[in-house]
Amino acid sequence: MAAPFPHHYELTITRTARSRASLDAGARPTIAGAPPPEFDGDPAAWSPEHLLLGAIGLCLETTFDALAAREQLDVAAWQATVAGTLDKTKLGLQFTAFSVAVDVTVAAPDVERARAILDRARRACIVSNALRVPVEVDGCVHAASQAA
Amino acid sequence: MAAPFPHHYELTITRTARSRASLDAGARPTIAGAPPPEFDGDPAAWSPEHLLLGAIGLCLETTFDALAAREQLDVAAWQATVAGTLDKTKLGLQFTAFSVAVDVTVAAPDVERARAILDRARRACIVSNALRVPVEVDGCVHAASQAA
Repeated sequence: MAAPFPHHYELTITRTARSRASLDAGARPTIAGAPPPEFDGDPAAWSPEHLLLGAIGLCLETTFDALAAREQLDVAAWQATVAGTLDKTKLGLQFTAFSVAVDVTVAAPDVERARAILDRARRACIVSNALRVPVEVDGCVHAASQAA
Repeated sequence: MAAPFPHHYELTITRTARSRASLDAGARPTIAGAPPPEFDGDPAAWSPEHLLLGAIGLCLETTFDALAAREQLDVAAWQATVAGTLDKTKLGLQFTAFSVAVDVTVAAPDVERARAILDRARRACIVSNALRVPVEVDGCVHAASQAA
């Protein structure tokens, strides 16, 4: 049974050293966080920038899968590259662009249906819709028979 | 040496099963992603909602620490609880509120300085500034001598 709205989410962040912090949310594995390398960070730790891209991409994927399940669409493969650009603007340092390049593979007869579902997922993505800068989604749907 | 702007970030997301995906970004440990439990997900996997809260909280922490380092402020402890609300609206399901409750501990003579730095970090946070809904930051700065 679906929980009633509103839904509440919570996370704890604890500083572990200068510019290092651990992220905890219930039973989820702890994430070690730091600035990205270009801000004197750690290339092996998750940065705020990468977590934000992860939220965008995972939201698109889970939204797509929820719609696909509802429509009984079998998904053979789904992969995406999520990109973000941070730049100096008149208002200071800001994200200026986000993009998601998605590759979806389904059975040949399902290609058009998958395209429509991807478009609906794009519009319903709660993380993209929470952002000021539009998230450009470039989707490519392949037929599994061609890929085999 | 700081990298020139713009900065580009990238992440790959790969569907591993229905509504399950892995998130990869360079040398960072893979994150297992899924919808949150109330959307038929997995309480032990990171959801888009929790990743977004993590991005908000970690951005505030690393921004605070960068400013503190520049001003040679020693931080004894820093912890925050980040919360988000998702609700049905006229425009569909959307995030309607974000909040961060921060507890900072510094030496007694540094309390006012830490409050000012927290306020500057709040305004400079690139993740909060990327969101349509304002992120409410409620900061409490403690003197380490009182806590000891």
